Amino acid sequence: MDKVQQYRHVVRQILTDEAHPYTHSNDVETEIICDTEHDHYQLSYVGWEGQQRIFNLILHFDIKDGKVWVQHNGTEIALA
Amino acid sequence: MDKVQQYRHVVRQILTDEAHPYTHSNDVETEIICDTEHDHYQLSYVGWEGQQRIFNLILHFDIKDGKVWVQHNGTEIALA
Repeated sequence: MDKVQQYRHVVRQILTDEAHPYTHSNDVETEIICDTEHDHYQLSYVGWEGQQRIFNLILHFDIKDGKVWVQHNGTEIALA
Repeated sequence: MDKVQQYRHVVRQILTDEAHPYTHSNDVETEIICDTEHDHYQLSYVGWEGQQRIFNLILHFDIKDGKVWVQHNGTEIALA
């Protein structure tokens, strides 16, 4: 597996590991986005908690120039 | 072309139409995300404007249950 393919695999695994059900509402979906065409990867929570709109961005990675770019990290723990 | 395939085409076209270069900084990228595996679609601006971090979500569509869900619309004009 070449380096970028391995990065794609690892990034997808991180998103899957961090994707938990949204416990405060059944109307909020956990969205894992994997765009392997443009190499954009994202985890977010989208939906409604009662009357309140939820669009919480948790993680966003890009792979470009052979590197992983952590564009957003909204998790509480640091990713090692 | 079946209905959902047509939706995918239209959604991708909207993102492309709305994707403009970020005029305030050369260090901000216009990101079009098309995840046809999970049917998530997004347009955002990601990068730096001087010392300031930019992560501007503009549009986010999902296709589910045979419908287009406008999950976020940060454009100024309404999409007809």
